Amino acid sequence: MSEYFLSNDFILQGKAAQRLYHDHVKNLPIIDYHCHLPPDEIANDKQFTNLTEIWLKGDHYKWRAMRTLGVSEQLITGNSSDEEKFNAWAKIVPQTVRNPLFHWTHMELKAVFGINEYLNEKSAASIYQTCNTLLKEPSYRTKALLNSFNVAYVGTTDEPWDSLEYHRQLAAENFSVRVSPSFRPDKILMIDNKEGFFKNLQLLETASGVTVTDIASLLQAIQIRVDFFHSNGCRVSDHGLMQMPGKFVFSKSLETEFASFVTEKKGTYSDPDTFMGFVLMELAKMYHTKDWVQQFHLGPIRNNNSRLSKKLGADSGFDSIGDFPQALNMSRFFDNLDQTDQLAKTVIYNINPSDNEVLATMLGNFNDGSVKAKMQFGSGWWFLDQKDGMEKQLNALSNMGLISTFIGMITDSRSFLSFPRHEYFRRILCNLIGDEMEKGLLPNDDKWMGEIVSNICYYNAKEYFNL
Amino acid sequence: MSEYFLSNDFILQGKAAQRLYHDHVKNLPIIDYHCHLPPDEIANDKQFTNLTEIWLKGDHYKWRAMRTLGVSEQLITGNSSDEEKFNAWAKIVPQTVRNPLFHWTHMELKAVFGINEYLNEKSAASIYQTCNTLLKEPSYRTKALLNSFNVAYVGTTDEPWDSLEYHRQLAAENFSVRVSPSFRPDKILMIDNKEGFFKNLQLLETASGVTVTDIASLLQAIQIRVDFFHSNGCRVSDHGLMQMPGKFVFSKSLETEFASFVTEKKGTYSDPDTFMGFVLMELAKMYHTKDWVQQFHLGPIRNNNSRLSKKLGADSGFDSIGDFPQALNMSRFFDNLDQTDQLAKTVIYNINPSDNEVLATMLGNFNDGSVKAKMQFGSGWWFLDQKDGMEKQLNALSNMGLISTFIGMITDSRSFLSFPRHEYFRRILCNLIGDEMEKGLLPNDDKWMGEIVSNICYYNAKEYFNL
Amino acid sequence: MSEYFLSNDFILQGKAAQRLYHDHVKNLPIIDYHCHLPPDEIANDKQFTNLTEIWLKGDHYKWRAMRTLGVSEQLITGNSSDEEKFNAWAKIVPQTVRNPLFHWTHMELKAVFGINEYLNEKSAASIYQTCNTLLKEPSYRTKALLNSFNVAYVGTTDEPWDSLEYHRQLAAENFSVRVSPSFRPDKILMIDNKEGFFKNLQLLETASGVTVTDIASLLQAIQIRVDFFHSNGCRVSDHGLMQMPGKFVFSKSLETEFASFVTEKKGTYSDPDTFMGFVLMELAKMYHTKDWVQQFHLGPIRNNNSRLSKKLGADSGFDSIGDFPQALNMSRFFDNLDQTDQLAKTVIYNINPSDNEVLATMLGNFNDGSVKAKMQFGSGWWFLDQKDGMEKQLNALSNMGLISTFIGMITDSRSFLSFPRHEYFRRILCNLIGDEMEKGLLPNDDKWMGEIVSNICYYNAKEYFNL
Repeated sequence: MSEYFLSNDFILQGKAAQRLYHDHVKNLPIIDYHCHLPPDEIANDKQFTNLTEIWLKGDHYKWRAMRTLGVSEQLITGNSSDEEKFNAWAKIVPQTVRNPLFHWTHMELKAVFGINEYLNEKSAASIYQTCNTLLKEPSYRTKALLNSFNVAYVGTTDEPWDSLEYHRQLAAENFSVRVSPSFRPDKILMIDNKEGFFKNLQLLETASGVTVTDIASLLQAIQIRVDFFHSNGCRVSDHGLMQMPGKFVFSKSLETEFASFVTEKKGTYSDPDTFMGFVLMELAKMYHTKDWVQQFHLGPIRNNNSRLSKKLGADSGFDSIGDFPQALNMSRFFDNLDQTDQLAKTVIYNINPSDNEVLATMLGNFNDGSVKAKMQFGSGWWFLDQKDGMEKQLNALSNMGLISTFIGMITDSRSFLSFPRHEYFRRILCNLIGDEMEKGLLPNDDKWMGEIVSNICYYNAKEYFNL
Repeated sequence: MSEYFLSNDFILQGKAAQRLYHDHVKNLPIIDYHCHLPPDEIANDKQFTNLTEIWLKGDHYKWRAMRTLGVSEQLITGNSSDEEKFNAWAKIVPQTVRNPLFHWTHMELKAVFGINEYLNEKSAASIYQTCNTLLKEPSYRTKALLNSFNVAYVGTTDEPWDSLEYHRQLAAENFSVRVSPSFRPDKILMIDNKEGFFKNLQLLETASGVTVTDIASLLQAIQIRVDFFHSNGCRVSDHGLMQMPGKFVFSKSLETEFASFVTEKKGTYSDPDTFMGFVLMELAKMYHTKDWVQQFHLGPIRNNNSRLSKKLGADSGFDSIGDFPQALNMSRFFDNLDQTDQLAKTVIYNINPSDNEVLATMLGNFNDGSVKAKMQFGSGWWFLDQKDGMEKQLNALSNMGLISTFIGMITDSRSFLSFPRHEYFRRILCNLIGDEMEKGLLPNDDKWMGEIVSNICYYNAKEYFNL
Repeated sequence: MSEYFLSNDFILQGKAAQRLYHDHVKNLPIIDYHCHLPPDEIANDKQFTNLTEIWLKGDHYKWRAMRTLGVSEQLITGNSSDEEKFNAWAKIVPQTVRNPLFHWTHMELKAVFGINEYLNEKSAASIYQTCNTLLKEPSYRTKALLNSFNVAYVGTTDEPWDSLEYHRQLAAENFSVRVSPSFRPDKILMIDNKEGFFKNLQLLETASGVTVTDIASLLQAIQIRVDFFHSNGCRVSDHGLMQMPGKFVFSKSLETEFASFVTEKKGTYSDPDTFMGFVLMELAKMYHTKDWVQQFHLGPIRNNNSRLSKKLGADSGFDSIGDFPQALNMSRFFDNLDQTDQLAKTVIYNINPSDNEVLATMLGNFNDGSVKAKMQFGSGWWFLDQKDGMEKQLNALSNMGLISTFIGMITDSRSFLSFPRHEYFRRILCNLIGDEMEKGLLPNDDKWMGEIVSNICYYNAKEYFNL
């Protein structure tokens, strides 16, 4: 076995980078303002049976890698035992080099379980046993895990009809980590998926106590849920779209058609795009009124493999990067809100790195001096959540905006083991800045640069989200 | 205060790079073949009241940064005093690290005023005073500034109806720097902006002495102004577009409609795109006849923030990068001209770096051996005018064209203080080449490589523009 | 003259990179699974008259560079003597620095002819003479050249109506290098080029013995040729397209129209896109049945300069990079095949590097665990076949797929001198991996990493193509 690669100065190539990381940002709390952790698993202080459950279940990143290496579905999402699945994963880990999975895997094993060796076919059994033993300890329940990572804030992602009972439970018990919901009403905007739309509409009606008979009652129902979320500590919304809507003027005839459609449930709605655009515009105004932060995740194409998506459901590893025009619609959407001063604080995430510069510059158009860095270019998302992807995002934002105002990293993850991604980001950021300090491209001033990186890693988000 | 970062070898990481810069290109004259300096301010040898006037007024790059950091419009374009505005800018400079503004700011303060410290809240007062004192000296008038930067040629950007009186005045007095106009008839192509179109048409009519009653008289009026510009030393045109026009065949019915439209001024013109395409094609033929160089700046979306654009006017910092398809239209437009051998020397600038490779390869299609590097991929423009952006342009051009034939840098600036951007470019170029010499990727031959970088920094442009 | 740059460790910046290259991949055989070598020139063991014939003829990369530098067509594709043409090329070589031509030129001169000096105006005569003398030796005939490069497999590119006589001749004589055809039926898909379509249809009819009177007989004729190719060792197909087809459902009325069109040859076919999509889909199913690998080259715009393309024909240096949307059509096309489990092993090549991430992620959607790395992101193609381009492809594939499963490099070349491009690729790959080993980003483990690079350079392709 070769010398283990995860040293104390992993990623940090120079002295300045090492000082920035170790002296300035390493110990800062984590504000994970957007993730997909299940609130019930936090509130119930879940204990995991084994490493497969906490690490492989639901992790479509790993699934894709396994499929690419010719591992059968049986061993990925099928009926194989947890141990067999773990072994199948362990066996391919050495072939994942240069994919973020390789770094994440070893950072997570080290940070959480103290493992200091490579995961592979040979080490699988002992690592599985070691981790499983640890997972039985109280310090490996979800709440302890969050504390061990020094997490200060978790922003979950929730349906408009969610009862938020677990968020309330956590608030009631004064859990040391603030766990707040995010309002994600995507499903109510997709009127072209008729079956899903009416199923979700009913959930909305039940949760809001409003029967939706026209566009006014739909907006009323949504407003009630926004109010409910707000009263339960929500200050953030989230939307996933291929592009920002290009049309958002709702005509009388579309209004009439909508009323018929929701009451009679017949046929198909003629203009789903404008419906989505209009409702999204109204939502954006509600967010502004509440002083929320709105997030938009733009650009993926989902469920490309319909055979396997049908079999395994959404989020199973069959999504990829789209190449849709993004600039004009974004401009119109934000401009429309800005004209009446109803543009909320906004974070945009792109899935296609070719759009980095479009986003970085578009956002600058709507920074009007009213709020520091009101418009935020979100950190490298999904496929871009790796060293190259984060560096490109940091560079685009630096060159065309102001990196000093960036609110930094999120895990966007479903897993309690993903928090080392913040460490990964912090090391990458410090390496970038430290390298330029040593090259004379930035002031060789630890205090100044240390403040810049500390702000990006913690204080900017704290201020932006009023924590 | 940390050690100041702008050393003698700023950006130049290796010995080869340092030799290339200091021994080969540092002292070459500057050919700034495209900028927006006001000719009257040169001709009148303007003296500036203070640093705010020469440095902050009209600089929408700085304005955007200030807005992003939450500075109120009052202190940017509003009624605050010049000193207050300067202080507001100085205060945020430390937060602009990694944006080109940070390097530019300190390079300009150093090169022009000899300032060797960081601009920030603390240093603001003394720097303001020092610079203001210097600005009162004759050596800080515009003509002396141009000479101090070793500028050999300035290409301004002018409306077709401009009297060019200041260019003539400068020519008459044999000013050491050649100041030539560029013909930029954008406004006459935008027939969809009816009010603006007729306003500008009248200016064209007055300047040309031709009453425009149909397309023939429009082209005649334009030709008269092209001739006038030519006789006043103009050899370059310029156009700003989102994309090259895709349609340029002007039908009889469009011709008839145009005649009615300009005489009756009623309604709206039915096909503004084809009108633009047709007139641009005719212009391109005029440029070819005159042996001019034609420039096209492609891709931005302007005035995205309509609320503030209305208030503050164009070029106030609300423009950004578009994502329009560029390849096919460009191919058709140039091919159409090439078929009849009417394609003039051409420089294309893109605003979206994702188009770098499209441009670098498209231009190669129309290099036909008739003129060395007839088709030029312009240097990093606007948002791309920074270290990363310039390196990407240099790399794309190297990989897919020939960097050795590149006509190099321009400021594209409205400011007399922007000439250190040529120094910036030269350092970046020498660093790139020098690095590869030391890595054995290029011949470690100072004479050979020194000639390559000298050509890019000066001699290629001299030859291309027949200076 | 400066010290020559092509050292033993060219490109390999660190010790780890040097060990990987010299100890692990340098001596591996070459599998050139996609190129354009003429099979007759192999079968007939062609001897070349001089360096111009083997090196400049047909090399549109060099032609573009010469045109850019103002060399007249006479000296490129015209009537000048071979020696004059060589001298014209030699003279501009020093100006090609940073273009891949500069590295290729000197690598090829060194690897094939043992030349260790720069090609330029001064060295031209002696280099021309040295090489011409060597070219007269038996060891410079095509077969010996292939052997000298340690080529194990050559995949040529052939028309459906090709007799494959030379492939059969080579197989019959048991030539040490396996030379297999690839099936490239592009021309039969382009029904909008009526004259070409019918000319090629006749060739297909003759070769297949089937008279095409409707779509069924067209597919029958194609199937016969697929069978014929298969029986002659073909296991690979290839297609060149701007985008994958978006429509592939062939209606009854299109079917009827096709029958009329091919029998009566009147008018134009109303929906060439759907015709192409439908036939391509049927072809893809044939490939799957035969267990072939299908290749798609996506994105270029060809013959942009119509004046010179008409004069000099296709592939003369007037093609460039398009910017077409690629994601949605690709998703639909592959998904359609995957739904019935008829998706063959597939290699996709893109010409626009802005699409790297779209491709790298799209392919992952169709890796279903059935075959290791069934969907392959092809190596840097054409304009992207240079150091930056290959590194970007390797990085995108690493970040968003698994580099360890990559089947590696091809020359895609028409020239017998292009095989050093494999050496170039191998050095670049080893440099990338070695650099990260030394930086602690990858395990510093020669055996592990040596296996990874060996697989990419040879073993993965061997397994993928069942060699």
